[in-house]
Amino acid sequence: MSTRRAKPHDPYHHGNLQNALLHAARQMLEERGPGGLGLREIARRVGVSAPSAYHHFHNLEAIAAGLVEQGSAELSTRLREAVGQTNMLLRTGEAYVAFAKANPALYRLMFGEGFSIEVRNSRAMKALREDALEIIKSRLPSLSPDRQSVAALYLWSLVHGLALLVIDGHLNGRLPKNVVQEILRFGGSSLASIEAARGERRNVR
Amino acid sequence: MSTRRAKPHDPYHHGNLQNALLHAARQMLEERGPGGLGLREIARRVGVSAPSAYHHFHNLEAIAAGLVEQGSAELSTRLREAVGQTNMLLRTGEAYVAFAKANPALYRLMFGEGFSIEVRNSRAMKALREDALEIIKSRLPSLSPDRQSVAALYLWSLVHGLALLVIDGHLNGRLPKNVVQEILRFGGSSLASIEAARGERRNVR
Repeated sequence: MSTRRAKPHDPYHHGNLQNALLHAARQMLEERGPGGLGLREIARRVGVSAPSAYHHFHNLEAIAAGLVEQGSAELSTRLREAVGQTNMLLRTGEAYVAFAKANPALYRLMFGEGFSIEVRNSRAMKALREDALEIIKSRLPSLSPDRQSVAALYLWSLVHGLALLVIDGHLNGRLPKNVVQEILRFGGSSLASIEAARGERRNVR
Repeated sequence: MSTRRAKPHDPYHHGNLQNALLHAARQMLEERGPGGLGLREIARRVGVSAPSAYHHFHNLEAIAAGLVEQGSAELSTRLREAVGQTNMLLRTGEAYVAFAKANPALYRLMFGEGFSIEVRNSRAMKALREDALEIIKSRLPSLSPDRQSVAALYLWSLVHGLALLVIDGHLNGRLPKNVVQEILRFGGSSLASIEAARGERRNVR
């Protein structure tokens, strides 16, 4: 890591500059995609020298990792907001897809597009998997832990694939109204039928 | 497009060189990922001059498009092979995920990673969507066309998301045995429950 410090005339305090760099990086990301990020251009946009930027993020991977952390924290918040609502599974699925739609390049970056396997398997992504598991546990408390794991991964596969099909434009064209909601309802009915088949207590929400 | 012709001493006939270039490109793709493809290096591997390669593929996008066509034709074949089998939905889902696992960089390329929106929305990808629809129609013939569309997109979302989670390494670690099959079974149970809820004839296969 660089040991250089921001120069005294730097208009930013330490934390402010870090945030300003991340903010500029995120704008650049959505304009150009994960492959278009560049640390010098980010510094230029914020109006500081490249060494000042390197003081906070010693390379482009570090900026990418910062954006992934930011993105997954935001997505987690959206998912948690949906957990208390009626039709919880539908609402969390909608919140997930809406996040990807609003931040398509960030969503792709979160899954490592253009970056290394370290970004791809970051703590942030593990946290997301934990979130999916928590949602399933609160929705289907009577399933065994193994079945809850499978159900959580099923749900994550469904919303991940759906989110990518949406942001890649595969759900444009002549399709039924509310197609995203209808696809998510299929997911909900699957969990309900598994619960029913096991003859377990139905936890209606 | 270049008007140069392959030199007389070129060891390949027209179709052979095209196939040899695609073959080398595909190896390079799996070694380096979509961002690592380069037309000069592909020509070098095949042992022809760059102009000879440009005669067949006038730029890197054209090679990428050729690989996408090849990949989706192969995936379509795998899916069609599974259609006649018992547990058709499970078998087609397994075939889909197995294809992505065997050709991870090609699978990512098929969804446009590293390339333009034209590759992303290619004819080949539209054909894949049609395949999913055909599978659903043969499995759930009694659903209305709109419901069949939704069911096909639901199935595609599920296997697409699952395939990507698998090739990105998110399904490693301590997970139940046969987790991919178990996740796919959830998908099948969803379609079965929707059919049952509509009181329609169950088409058991």
